[in-house]
Amino acid sequence: MNEIRVGIVGLGRLGKVHAHNLAYNVANATLYAVCSPLDSEIEYAKNELGVKVGYTDYEDMVKDEQVDAIFIVSPSGLHCTQIQLALKCGKHVFSEKPIGLNIDEINETISVINQYPNQKFMLGFMRRFDKDYLYAKDLVEKGELGDLTLIRCYGIDPSDGLESFVKFAGSSNSGGLFADMSIHDIDLIRWFTGQEVKKVWAIGKNAAYKELDDVGELETGAAMLQLGDNTMGILVAGRNCHHGYHVETELIGTKGMLRIAQVPEKNLVTIMNEHGVVRPTSQNFPERFSQAFINEANDFIECILTDRQPSVNAIDGLESTKVALACKESYEKNQLITV
Amino acid sequence: MNEIRVGIVGLGRLGKVHAHNLAYNVANATLYAVCSPLDSEIEYAKNELGVKVGYTDYEDMVKDEQVDAIFIVSPSGLHCTQIQLALKCGKHVFSEKPIGLNIDEINETISVINQYPNQKFMLGFMRRFDKDYLYAKDLVEKGELGDLTLIRCYGIDPSDGLESFVKFAGSSNSGGLFADMSIHDIDLIRWFTGQEVKKVWAIGKNAAYKELDDVGELETGAAMLQLGDNTMGILVAGRNCHHGYHVETELIGTKGMLRIAQVPEKNLVTIMNEHGVVRPTSQNFPERFSQAFINEANDFIECILTDRQPSVNAIDGLESTKVALACKESYEKNQLITV
Amino acid sequence: MNEIRVGIVGLGRLGKVHAHNLAYNVANATLYAVCSPLDSEIEYAKNELGVKVGYTDYEDMVKDEQVDAIFIVSPSGLHCTQIQLALKCGKHVFSEKPIGLNIDEINETISVINQYPNQKFMLGFMRRFDKDYLYAKDLVEKGELGDLTLIRCYGIDPSDGLESFVKFAGSSNSGGLFADMSIHDIDLIRWFTGQEVKKVWAIGKNAAYKELDDVGELETGAAMLQLGDNTMGILVAGRNCHHGYHVETELIGTKGMLRIAQVPEKNLVTIMNEHGVVRPTSQNFPERFSQAFINEANDFIECILTDRQPSVNAIDGLESTKVALACKESYEKNQLITV
Amino acid sequence: MNEIRVGIVGLGRLGKVHAHNLAYNVANATLYAVCSPLDSEIEYAKNELGVKVGYTDYEDMVKDEQVDAIFIVSPSGLHCTQIQLALKCGKHVFSEKPIGLNIDEINETISVINQYPNQKFMLGFMRRFDKDYLYAKDLVEKGELGDLTLIRCYGIDPSDGLESFVKFAGSSNSGGLFADMSIHDIDLIRWFTGQEVKKVWAIGKNAAYKELDDVGELETGAAMLQLGDNTMGILVAGRNCHHGYHVETELIGTKGMLRIAQVPEKNLVTIMNEHGVVRPTSQNFPERFSQAFINEANDFIECILTDRQPSVNAIDGLESTKVALACKESYEKNQLITV
Repeated sequence: MNEIRVGIVGLGRLGKVHAHNLAYNVANATLYAVCSPLDSEIEYAKNELGVKVGYTDYEDMVKDEQVDAIFIVSPSGLHCTQIQLALKCGKHVFSEKPIGLNIDEINETISVINQYPNQKFMLGFMRRFDKDYLYAKDLVEKGELGDLTLIRCYGIDPSDGLESFVKFAGSSNSGGLFADMSIHDIDLIRWFTGQEVKKVWAIGKNAAYKELDDVGELETGAAMLQLGDNTMGILVAGRNCHHGYHVETELIGTKGMLRIAQVPEKNLVTIMNEHGVVRPTSQNFPERFSQAFINEANDFIECILTDRQPSVNAIDGLESTKVALACKESYEKNQLITV
Repeated sequence: MNEIRVGIVGLGRLGKVHAHNLAYNVANATLYAVCSPLDSEIEYAKNELGVKVGYTDYEDMVKDEQVDAIFIVSPSGLHCTQIQLALKCGKHVFSEKPIGLNIDEINETISVINQYPNQKFMLGFMRRFDKDYLYAKDLVEKGELGDLTLIRCYGIDPSDGLESFVKFAGSSNSGGLFADMSIHDIDLIRWFTGQEVKKVWAIGKNAAYKELDDVGELETGAAMLQLGDNTMGILVAGRNCHHGYHVETELIGTKGMLRIAQVPEKNLVTIMNEHGVVRPTSQNFPERFSQAFINEANDFIECILTDRQPSVNAIDGLESTKVALACKESYEKNQLITV
Repeated sequence: MNEIRVGIVGLGRLGKVHAHNLAYNVANATLYAVCSPLDSEIEYAKNELGVKVGYTDYEDMVKDEQVDAIFIVSPSGLHCTQIQLALKCGKHVFSEKPIGLNIDEINETISVINQYPNQKFMLGFMRRFDKDYLYAKDLVEKGELGDLTLIRCYGIDPSDGLESFVKFAGSSNSGGLFADMSIHDIDLIRWFTGQEVKKVWAIGKNAAYKELDDVGELETGAAMLQLGDNTMGILVAGRNCHHGYHVETELIGTKGMLRIAQVPEKNLVTIMNEHGVVRPTSQNFPERFSQAFINEANDFIECILTDRQPSVNAIDGLESTKVALACKESYEKNQLITV
Repeated sequence: MNEIRVGIVGLGRLGKVHAHNLAYNVANATLYAVCSPLDSEIEYAKNELGVKVGYTDYEDMVKDEQVDAIFIVSPSGLHCTQIQLALKCGKHVFSEKPIGLNIDEINETISVINQYPNQKFMLGFMRRFDKDYLYAKDLVEKGELGDLTLIRCYGIDPSDGLESFVKFAGSSNSGGLFADMSIHDIDLIRWFTGQEVKKVWAIGKNAAYKELDDVGELETGAAMLQLGDNTMGILVAGRNCHHGYHVETELIGTKGMLRIAQVPEKNLVTIMNEHGVVRPTSQNFPERFSQAFINEANDFIECILTDRQPSVNAIDGLESTKVALACKESYEKNQLITV
């Protein structure tokens, strides 16, 4: 077997990114099947991506003997059951984050994963596959920064999505700002330090859209994290970034500091005009992490082909979710929470 | 009266900066007298700065009828009594931060200040007079950033002072990392937002010098602040900055973000060599804030000459000290503290 | 036909880049055959890239009926004859720059190209497919910079190749600094302005390796170009860049300025350490233009599949070579040369 | 004598800068007299700067026995005669650049200067006193860049002055773009390299205001310079910079590159808003070089007090003017000119 046939569930914004990569940019992978409730999405996959089979029922797809591996890019609430079903049908599984929305179902999913040790399971923390983050990780491991003492992570979505978020907040369930936006940052903190979070305090402020107070949602929030060895974590999350998609990570060590995307430069262009000296900015996550999504899919396929365990696993999903939920609770109670 | 005769107490590192400015760079001021226990410092002032009179006793200087105004740049523990004495002798007073080390003596000092409404009192939060901070303040006031939701402040001293700090920690009393390093940042948060801090959590980690744990001092610390209107504050303070003197302030508003000294650029030079693309950095506070010290002294003299109240007053000293002490307590108890 | 079978000649440093892209990153292309005098390179292609057929004789490869298109990445002196031969055998042709080394053989090649209008010919000016250059081109075409008045182009190779260049200079024929390094820059100037160069003056200086004077080679050179409508061009070329691979392009227009890779940032990482604030740098052209090479190959394949003429053609090769040769002559005579 | 009494001639834009500095920011100097044909300027000097005496006739001022030194900030055409007159009356002289407009009168002035070796003469190339340039000079002298091979200098004035320049071009005599704008850059090239220019070619283009062609003026120009030891110089000069006042200098050496004001950052502020990541820019020369003007005046006064020769002398004025005039001639003839 040296070409992995993949079936994908979910063809929304991020689903389309994964589907396109699997069709064109991932070595030794074929995008064989898609599953979507929408005919138009299935047609798209057949016409644009050369997909052979379209399913409207997930169970049918995971039972297709031609399919080797499943990509789950469905709504977060479905991840746990879809992971379990795919594993039980003998498939390798890649799931987008979060692994699940509550701790019980995640734990149950982990026990299922553990029953199928010969099938690969990988969670979509794609930043770990971004070249900038890998460059930073390498420097950390070489000791260039000394011992890490503080990590600061910003994850702020562009303002252009905020209007519609405000409209649907309350009816939809985002999981809260920290689960929705900071989960990648929490994973990065664990990845860089190898430590777990022990205490958090989270706060927030609604200023442009005070009506978000009523539905328990946040425009901008911040959390401070105390890790096992006292390393400090700072999270800033938000939905109101006028300059685009601001994902920034800072590592402070005893020998130096390092920032990944200190400002979210879109490219190598600098413009000088009546506004001053201007660097254009990344506008959204598919733009910022386009290559990281390709890299993680390549790695997943390679894990299958070379029988290697993926580096991002279900425990990473469990632990990061625990911290995100602790932030949510801390914000709601305005108290320190022990994870 | 259009030339103010100043007497200065304290000729240490910062004292010399103020003395030099008063002698050469401040309009309508004459550095008339100095007070120091060291003959060598008095000699220096006479020879290098053209000072007429040298005192070894502070009380003698404040009683000198030729002196119009006193600059206090002595050890922090002396500020309160020296402020009070100078006021009682009819002098205008400029005092370096902090106004005092405990709340009681500060309150007592404030009541003395209030008894002499015709004499000017100004506290040395010089960052408010730095052109970069003033440029940012102006943008905030014009509404360019919208409503402020979060302020992040870094104040990290260069590593080259850390070795000696570790040696003397315990014997000397720094007041703790937050009082020592973050007091300017706390003042900035109050200045930019017009809000008071209501809750804090402070944490820290000693990694290069774990022996600091034993004397209750910190290499690096962080605090999160909740302000009256829920605006968020983040403080990072430290003593171990290998690239120099890192003072950075970020304002996040509903319409934009702004950073002052995102990286502590020393000048307009960019070097490209085997290390990559390198911007040299500011190495210490006299370098970074050299012009701000001149500006604040000019402002103080102008306040006297034009009978205007200084914009930085004793209440600013009181409130910022309260927050610094709350950070200290929070760190020591590892609890949320209400200010 | 919706999968183009490609044969590549030349598996040196750049040849390997193209071969790898054709094998893995180019949609609708199969790397079917390679041609190399070295068995080891053919083995590499078969084992690593899944190539079916290896040739040691170029004529054999271009006569292979299974091959639809030829990629020429051989030494510059062979380009013209290999282009002509491939066209005569009915193949589409992609050739690396330069199209040739002298004007006569280029003109002859162009007349052959013109005899096969149904076969695509494309020249490898990959910068036109780099996203940063495309972003700039788009702004120029939207009029964001107004009318262009000056273009400045730097192309400086890393110092680590200089030692060996000095060793072999004289025996090898680089074509001279301007043909070797500036040809891409000359193409960019023509591409951005739509103008041809009318006059040039080129100068140079050998300082680290004065022995290059003896063999007529240059460590660093500069040329100034006057274009048809008086737009100004400035070229700086070199072989002694200690910070890596410095390719920078500046556009000055009546409404603004724009720089592409003002400094050759390797990634989004900023490091602060004892050297100051450091941005790591790109080290060589395969790193800097990795995605551009993929994009141009994709475009070439798409041109074939959709029967579209490539945007980079033989005239671009001819005109840029004329200017490079004029720079060489100008430097040698220290005179203004009319192209 | 330890307080130098200065008389200044010319109270235009730059004259006011010098006058203000002499009144307030220069140690051991007193602004004693001013000379201006306008009563309003004399009144300004008396009221705002505390000047004692106002003259409408230059000869009267230089004969005033109370005056020790003369600052010449009058129109360029008057510099030579005013320098000579002041020297003959026994005064020390500081003259703004250029020293003169033609080579003959400059040579005559130099011979007068040589007759008064005990009086100081200094020319106003203030960039040599700017801390960024001094920092760069220091690195060059320490050998950090190796041998210099190329210097690139940009001097582009803000667009907001262009409209009025176009209106008065022809009637006024700017001396041409290179004499008007590049003279500082030419001085910098001589200062950094210690070499004289031997050959130049200058070109230009009028695009926004083509009517400038008719009066022999330029919106934007460029010149390439070959120095005595083959070091290369590149000048870009202009009057149409939309982002402010762009003065940038680059040094390329055998060991590294260095840029002073790669972009003309106004301060340490970075703004992120709907335009992207924005650095505000310097808007004009009094802003960009405010401290350099103070430093050069301090140095001039110190030269007098310590009987030291100023580092910028009349020969610097002569040689830089020669090169500027060669650029003008080269542009007019579109030929290479040997200086």
